[in-house]
This record gives sequence, structure tokens and C-alpha cells, in this order.
Amino acid sequence: MLTEVKETKMKFSKRTHTCGKLTVKDVGKSVVLNGWVDKRRDLGGVIFVGLRDRYGITQVVFEPENNEEAHRVGKELRNEFVISIEGTVRKRPDDQINKGMKTGSIDVIVNKIVILNESETPPFPIKDNIETFEDLRLKYRYLDLRRPVFQKTLLLRHRMYQIVRKYFDENSFIEIETPMLMKSTPEGARDYLVPSRIHKGKFYALPQSPQTYKQLLMISGFDRYFQIVKCFRDEDFRADRQPEFTQIDVEMSFVDTEDVLEVVEGLMKLLFKEIWNKELKEPVPRFTFNEAMERYGSDKPDIRFSLELITLNSVFKNSEFKVFKDAIESEGIVSGLVAPGCAKYSRNQIDNLTKIVKNLGAKGLVWIKVTEDGIDSPIAKFLSDDEKEKIVKTMNAGAGDLILILAGKRLKTLIQMGVLRLEMAKRLELVNPDVEPELLWVTDFPLLDWDEETKRYYAMHHPFTSPRMEDIGLLDTDPGKVKARAYDLVLNGYEIAGGSIRIHNSDLQLKMFKVLGISKEEAEKKFGFLMNAFKYGAPPHGGIAFGFDRMVMIFAGGTSIRDTIAFPKTTSALSLMDESPSEVSEEQLKELHIAIRKES
Amino acid sequence: MLTEVKETKMKFSKRTHTCGKLTVKDVGKSVVLNGWVDKRRDLGGVIFVGLRDRYGITQVVFEPENNEEAHRVGKELRNEFVISIEGTVRKRPDDQINKGMKTGSIDVIVNKIVILNESETPPFPIKDNIETFEDLRLKYRYLDLRRPVFQKTLLLRHRMYQIVRKYFDENSFIEIETPMLMKSTPEGARDYLVPSRIHKGKFYALPQSPQTYKQLLMISGFDRYFQIVKCFRDEDFRADRQPEFTQIDVEMSFVDTEDVLEVVEGLMKLLFKEIWNKELKEPVPRFTFNEAMERYGSDKPDIRFSLELITLNSVFKNSEFKVFKDAIESEGIVSGLVAPGCAKYSRNQIDNLTKIVKNLGAKGLVWIKVTEDGIDSPIAKFLSDDEKEKIVKTMNAGAGDLILILAGKRLKTLIQMGVLRLEMAKRLELVNPDVEPELLWVTDFPLLDWDEETKRYYAMHHPFTSPRMEDIGLLDTDPGKVKARAYDLVLNGYEIAGGSIRIHNSDLQLKMFKVLGISKEEAEKKFGFLMNAFKYGAPPHGGIAFGFDRMVMIFAGGTSIRDTIAFPKTTSALSLMDESPSEVSEEQLKELHIAIRKES
Repeated sequence: MLTEVKETKMKFSKRTHTCGKLTVKDVGKSVVLNGWVDKRRDLGGVIFVGLRDRYGITQVVFEPENNEEAHRVGKELRNEFVISIEGTVRKRPDDQINKGMKTGSIDVIVNKIVILNESETPPFPIKDNIETFEDLRLKYRYLDLRRPVFQKTLLLRHRMYQIVRKYFDENSFIEIETPMLMKSTPEGARDYLVPSRIHKGKFYALPQSPQTYKQLLMISGFDRYFQIVKCFRDEDFRADRQPEFTQIDVEMSFVDTEDVLEVVEGLMKLLFKEIWNKELKEPVPRFTFNEAMERYGSDKPDIRFSLELITLNSVFKNSEFKVFKDAIESEGIVSGLVAPGCAKYSRNQIDNLTKIVKNLGAKGLVWIKVTEDGIDSPIAKFLSDDEKEKIVKTMNAGAGDLILILAGKRLKTLIQMGVLRLEMAKRLELVNPDVEPELLWVTDFPLLDWDEETKRYYAMHHPFTSPRMEDIGLLDTDPGKVKARAYDLVLNGYEIAGGSIRIHNSDLQLKMFKVLGISKEEAEKKFGFLMNAFKYGAPPHGGIAFGFDRMVMIFAGGTSIRDTIAFPKTTSALSLMDESPSEVSEEQLKELHIAIRKES
Repeated sequence: MLTEVKETKMKFSKRTHTCGKLTVKDVGKSVVLNGWVDKRRDLGGVIFVGLRDRYGITQVVFEPENNEEAHRVGKELRNEFVISIEGTVRKRPDDQINKGMKTGSIDVIVNKIVILNESETPPFPIKDNIETFEDLRLKYRYLDLRRPVFQKTLLLRHRMYQIVRKYFDENSFIEIETPMLMKSTPEGARDYLVPSRIHKGKFYALPQSPQTYKQLLMISGFDRYFQIVKCFRDEDFRADRQPEFTQIDVEMSFVDTEDVLEVVEGLMKLLFKEIWNKELKEPVPRFTFNEAMERYGSDKPDIRFSLELITLNSVFKNSEFKVFKDAIESEGIVSGLVAPGCAKYSRNQIDNLTKIVKNLGAKGLVWIKVTEDGIDSPIAKFLSDDEKEKIVKTMNAGAGDLILILAGKRLKTLIQMGVLRLEMAKRLELVNPDVEPELLWVTDFPLLDWDEETKRYYAMHHPFTSPRMEDIGLLDTDPGKVKARAYDLVLNGYEIAGGSIRIHNSDLQLKMFKVLGISKEEAEKKFGFLMNAFKYGAPPHGGIAFGFDRMVMIFAGGTSIRDTIAFPKTTSALSLMDESPSEVSEEQLKELHIAIRKES
């Protein structure tokens, strides 16, 4: 039985065309098409089938008077059956021409058909804009990927790989693969570990990034390196992170910040042109970290809309209002934002906004409605007339506008204001598909972040980032003030790349580790090979790494990283399709010299 | 102190040219070069320094009369110091022109120099053809990679990546990344496992190949897929294997063997042209597995030299010599090989050859020296005159030649003869760099391999390989006779790619698992998602995977895989540079819910 079935199903004629190819020019030709039944209409006598492949859809027609046997088989077809047909191209009657389809002017009249495979009814329809739980889509990912939106997105992703590599190749960068099995040196996120079978009790780690290797490649004299590479972070997932993600990794020797930025802008210009057919606006704006925070409350500002924050310390420098007074006296900030036309907001709407900033740790939200007659605000009674006048003027607010103000510690307050800004942009529908994309740089980041909990500094980027030359002295006296030679690239409010000029001197690198509370011994144990390499003629170097998945997401106009990856994991790092991670055999564990812990 | 040192070392002028760029056309120009001190000659008054970067070497000259300060610093330079110089391009005197170097007609007279970094004396010289233990080179891999041979090999590898991707892109293949964290389904080699922190007691596996994913992508309708991808196998290493290796992975829908072969030959043609500037000889020869074994004793024959094996069963069909008689009667083989001009081999030389085949399990080696007067052989007395005449004639041997013969079980004997053939080719120096490369296909492999130890069949390629249509019936009756729709690509005696047409029908796949002794339950547990996917319209499909590291090795003219990889592991899977695998913290293990076993 099986023999018979198989032999039929395995024998088929090679296609002469794909399903997106035939036009009126082919009328009269004998053709072979292979593909999936996208749709089937049985009009009693005649059966119309939309035959689909990656390249398009062609309508094939089964007419009993043309071929009785083919028509009989045509009756058996169901959606997603895989078939091979032989037939003749025929021009459609004028009133049936579909101008929206490349193949819309022709039909193929079927003379012969082979069913290559049948299909059960899919758990969801193979078309866009379906209402289906993502979990079901992920379980049947191979069917999800048949939907036009995924075919399009992965084709776009394919094009982006090729554009990126071509660009770097043409600019003398050399593609080099770095190891996936490396040394565990967790600093920041957790490593994924891989137990060694040959070396009992020892482990490899999967790379969080090829950072040390790309620096070693500079020391090796490769001058300009790039790679599109998988990286891994074992984090507790925020909504849109993946345990494995793809990075465009770049490093250059004998460069300063300007050189790296120039190379990156060249790539972005190309992608804007090739993917969006848009000209990148030049020069690409640059904001210092301080400026970005003060004006947008974010180190990855979305400047597709203005809604800028305004620092109000000067307005309230003599304020009697305790919240403002305290903030200003303790070197904090009072920051405001105008929501145009929102003076009509209800109590309830304002409460919702207050909830949002309170969740972020703000004590409360100050609001001021600007009216024709002056201002309406719970804090009006604490403000002098001068302050009332100044605030409206400074904020450039008009009647009908709503002013929102937060006061407190500088960075914390600005971050809260940044979230409020994005919330207002959403409510005011300031971002729509027609808004032009906005690319920008953020520079002059602090080198170090002070952590109150552990009472130590952390590297804001990573411990290999170089301080600004003029700040090196501060490393001993006031590390928090040191600025880094670091830069982030921001597109539409997403950080899509980050990099820095690196430390290339082992003394300075040791000092950096010291400031980070990493002892000489620990540095030696973890990064000894890199420190050692610095002793043999390390060139000045710097680079950058792009979050490729996120770039694809933005260029595809999507909103979820998962939709840009062929086989993604859920937010709890599960693959619903193959059900990994999964249990493994005791024998496998034994060979790896590990056991599952009883406790915990 | 550090401040001062650093500020100087971090400030340098941007290079105007690389060290491979300047020619007589640039004479008189003011230039800035950055690079490494490759060599330094101090002729008392004048100092000559070869300044090196990835692009070449330029001779820069420190003359006291030109700039005293620069000359003073020039005296401090040692090999591998990183410097930045500013100077003027000067034509060399005619008698000092080096025609072998692109920059050999000019010098740069140094007006200013900054030492960007010093270097300790490297543990081995930065030049080719050094006599250094590989372990030392691997420990200081970043210095090893500075040597010209590695700069060249990795640049070649870079070019091969670009050529390969461009080829597949231009042929409508779409590049898709498949997951690195997948389900453990060991079948054949061992998986590398990755413990899950979020899901206690569960593990991901690193891919041995993206086989199941690429088949799912065909089911998704992507039609033509490729990827250059890292794969992992936890094997006990043979000499030239790496735990992580790079594969060019390819899959196509609606194809038969011919279609895959055509695409692959197109790629090879391109690589022959672009890398070697050679025309690929077409048609590319094809050998069935049987033919390759019988003529070359190998399923990856090196046909750059002939030394073909000849089956002698017909010559000895009535032999009285027991060894031959037994072999022929038990459906075994008598196979011979002519070593031209080797009749002069000493007892000792022949003993050495005997040792080689005995190590492979042969009982002994029959040798026949062909002389002007007839034959000289220990078995001469067992042979009839007719046999003596026939053997010399059949083997086409002449006076002075040596005939080597093995007899026994067919495949085992042929494999031994294959090794003997390669050994003789080496002794006769039949392969040298001038020999033309030879590409070929091996096809019609057996689908299954019987394992005497475990008394079961194993898939010769993998369990997703399709049997030939005409052999499907044999799966029930005589599985050992079933031939696969599989093909291997062989270059210069190395298997560089292997692939097959796949099973695309879940019934046939289940039957295949059954023949392999994998129960329905086990198949369901391990490959349920794939079997399930087959039910929703899987197209006929097939593909191939190339061993990219090995391809680079052959195209670079090398002999070691490790020399084609930037940061390789040793044969015991160690990275001598960063000393991974390494111990990790108890805290890390606790988070992963695993412990190191006390026992074993």
C-alpha cells in the first residue's frame, strides 16, 4: 500500500515556472506549476484553485470538458494540499482580470494533476490579520510562517543581511567567526552554560557578545572586522527579549569616535534607501546623554514628535511649594511637559497618568490646566503670580493645554517624565505609519553607574569602554563624573546599536576593573588573556554592535521582535513548537558529570 | 602618571593611507601611517622600520638630520610596537627598489612619531614557517593570527563567505537563521546540552545541524533556503574535528537529485574561478557508492591520481589458494592494486605496508613482484600458470611493478585497499601542489548501515533521508539492500558536502524510524513536531550541507582545519587562550539547578 501511494506522490514533473511568474506573454504555453492550494472555488462545473508558492499565486482551472480525470482529482483538493499541475496558459476574459496581481490576467487550464501531499485542516487560516492566540501560532510555527506577513518579513530580513554584509565587505571589513563555546565571565547578565564532557566539572559559556574576541582580532591586526552573530543572555525576560538574539558586530582599529559614526551612518543611509526608499536626513543629530535626558527623558529618545521636556528649576528657584523647593535644593530637577489641547482631561484621565508615574516611583504628578483666564491647578495656591505667568510662558503653553510636572532626583525624575512623554504621544496619536523615521546619536554617557544596593559602580556599557581622555584623572577622585567614549544609535525611539572606543592599555584596563570592584586576581582569572594581549602591541580601537532583530522589526514596520525571527522562544524561553527545553536522559547527564539538584 | 602616559598614547593623527597603499605616484606627499613595527634596522645614523598593517608593509625612515626628536624616539622602537608616524613620501634610490613589494619603490621620511603602544618580545616571531609548538601558538592566538599566513587564510575565508552568499542570493535562496537553543534529539553524535534556569531539570541542546528546521522551512513554503551556520558535536575527537564547526546549509522544495546537484555545481564552478582562477571540469564525474568503493576503496575517492583498485574475483574464481578461494566462496572480494616501479621494494618496506593493513584488520597482504622473467611472490606456488599470466595482464602490470592484493569481506577489504592506495600515492609522491583539483559526486549510498554490535540498522546519512522510490518495498523485506537518494560531494579526497532528497510523508517517515528501531512513542517524543508538520502539506524537498571549514582548508591549500578558524579548540576541546572550559561559581550552578556529580 505504502509503496503504491509513495511512488505516485514522489513522481512529479519539474515546474517550468513559479506561481508568481506567468503573465499574458505566456498565453498558449504548456506549463508545470507546483504549490499549495490557497483557495478553492467549485462552481459545479468548473473548479478554480489559487495555487500558491513563495513567489505568488496563480489561478488554475479544472474544466470537466477539458480533462475529466484532472477535474475529478480537482474535486478532492482542500486548502494547503500540495499539488503539481500541467496545463495551458489562457488569457482571462477582460471582466475577470485582477489588476492587483502580477498573474491576474491569466489562468492555467489543467490537463494533469498529481497530489504530492494532502493536508489536514490547519488550526488557523493561512492569511494575514487573523485573530489567533500567539501561543497557538508558535506551536504551529511552520504554518504561521506560511502567512504572507511572515514570508514578507523574512524576505526583508534576508535582504538586510545581504545589504549589511555587502556594505562592510565593500568598506574593507573582514568577516570573522568567533567561538560560540567560550569562557564564562559573567558581568552584567547571566551566561548560558554548557557542561564539558571531556573535562569534568568544567563549563563553556555561550557568548553574551563577541566583545573580547573582536578586541583580540584588532590586536591581531585585522584592522576592520564585522560579523552577524548569535548572542545569548539568560535574563528574566522583559516583554520583547529573546534568550538568543542576533547582533551585527563591528570593530575598527586606529579610530576615534568620528570614524565609527561615519561608517555606521553610511550603513544606515544605505538601509534607508534600499529598504524604505528614503533619504537619510543628514547630518544625523547628536545629543549628549544629558541633553537627551533633559529634553526627552530618555537615552533613546523618539524625536518623531516633539513634546519636549522643559527644565523648570529657574522658574521655581524661589518657590514656596515644598515639592519643588526640596527638589531644587537637593540638586534635583523640576521638569515639565505640555500636552497640547489636554486641558479638557477629566479627573479620571489625570489619575491614570498619575498612576503611571507613581508605578515608576514618583510621589505625585503636578498638573496645570491652562485656561483663557489663567491656570487651574491644585498647586495654584502655592504659586506666586510671577511663577504662574512664567510657567505658562516658559512652557510656551496656550489656553486649552495641559502642563504636567514632576520634581525629584534628577535622573529618576527625567526617566519618569520620559515615560509620561511617550504615554502622551500615544494618547495624542503622534506616531502613525506616515511619520518620517528619525535616527540620532546619543553620546557622552557616564562611564559608570552607581548602584545603591550593592554600593558599587557598574560599567554603564561594559568594562572595556574607554573614558574620555580628559577625564582619566577623575577615575581616582570622582569616578561618577567620568564620561565614556561611548555612543548609542537610536531609531524611532529604539536603541538599535551601541558602542565605544575601547581601552587598549593594560594599566588603564586594570584601573577600570579596580573602580568596578574587580580585584586584580579576579581580573586576571577572568580576563587574563585579554590583559596579556594588551602587552603585545594593542592598537587603539573601537566599535559598535547592532541589535539586528530589532532593526528588522523597525524596518518591517512591526512591533514584536518575535515576528522577525523564524523560530522564536516565548517570554519564558520556551519553544512551543519542539517543546524545548526538555528532559534529557540520565545517561546524557552522567556523561556530562552533572546531576539535577534535589533541593531548591 | 597614568594620566600623562594615557593622554599621549590616546592622541594620534588619523592615517591618510594604509601601509599597503603608497607608490611612486605619492612621492612628495605628506602622509600619516599607523601600524606595527615589523622589522627595525639601526644603521647608526639612519633607522629603517618596516611598518605593517593588514594591507601591507611600508618602509619608514628616521634620519637624525631630518628630525632629531623623531630619530631619538625611533631608537626606542622594538618589534610589534604600535606607532603613528607623519612623514613625507620619497622615492628610493634605484638600487634599493624592492620590486616584490607594492610599496617597494618608496620610503616615508618620518617627521613625527607617537608610540601608541609598546610590546613585550613575542613568544614566537611574527612570520611564516616558524618552528613552534602548536599549543604555544594557540595560547597566544592573537599573535599567531598576525602572521601573514593567517591574515591570508582568514581573508580568503571572508571572500568565500561573500561568494557563497551572493551565489545563493542570486539564485533565489533566502537566508534564514535557525535556533541555537533547540531540543535534544541525539541520534548519532552526542548533543552539547544547555541547562535551563527557568525550567528546572530541563535542557536545551546546541544544534548538530539545522536539519529539522530547514525541513520545517520547506513546509512553511520558503522554497529555497540557505544559511552559513555554526553546528556542534560532542565527539571524541579525531585529529581534525572541532566541537563547533561551520556549515553551509541548503534546502530546496519541489526538487529531485539533479536539481540539487546542479545548484551545487554552479557554486563550485564559481569558487574554482574566483578563488583558484581555474575552470571546473564539466561534467563533474559521478560514481555510485559501489563503484567508488570498488575502484578507489573509499566513498570519498581522491582521483587526482589513478592507482585504481581492480577486482580479481574472475581471475581467481577457480583458485586453489585458500585465502582467495574462501573470500570468493563467501561472497567476498579479491582486490588488487599496481604500485608502478615498486618491485624493488625491500622486505622491510613490504612489512611496513603489511602492518598498515593488519592494523585495519586484514589478515595479511599478498604481494607479487613482476619481473622480466615472470612473477616473484610468496603465493606463486599456489597459483596456476594461467592465473599468473592472467593476474599480470588484468592488472596491466609491467616488469618492475609491484602488485598488492587483499582478500576478504567485501566492504572491509575495499576500505583496507583504499588506505593502502592512499599510502602508496604518498610514497610515490603522486600529489603535489601542481596537481589539478578533482571534484566528484558519490551517489546511490545504502540507506542503512547494519551494526553488528548493537544488532540494528543505523541511517547511513540521517533518518530523514528518502529511500529510492523503487526500493521502498525492500524496507519491509530486505532493508540492507535499500539505496538512498543521497549524494556526497568530494574534493581532492575530502568529503566537502553531503545531502539527500528527504522523506516528506509522515507514514514513510514512521516506517523509517521503525526500521531504525525507534518506536512510535520515541519518534513522537523526539520528532513529533516534524511528523505533525508533515500532515499539513509538506512539499517534496531535498538539500545539502557543506563543511565550510574544510572547504576553506582545501581552497587555502592547507592541511589543518584549525588553521582556517580564528579561535579553534584543541583536539581535546580546550581553548588554550582563554582556558575554557573553566570552573564556574557554585552560585551559577545553583541557579541552573544542577550540581557536579561526586561519583564517576
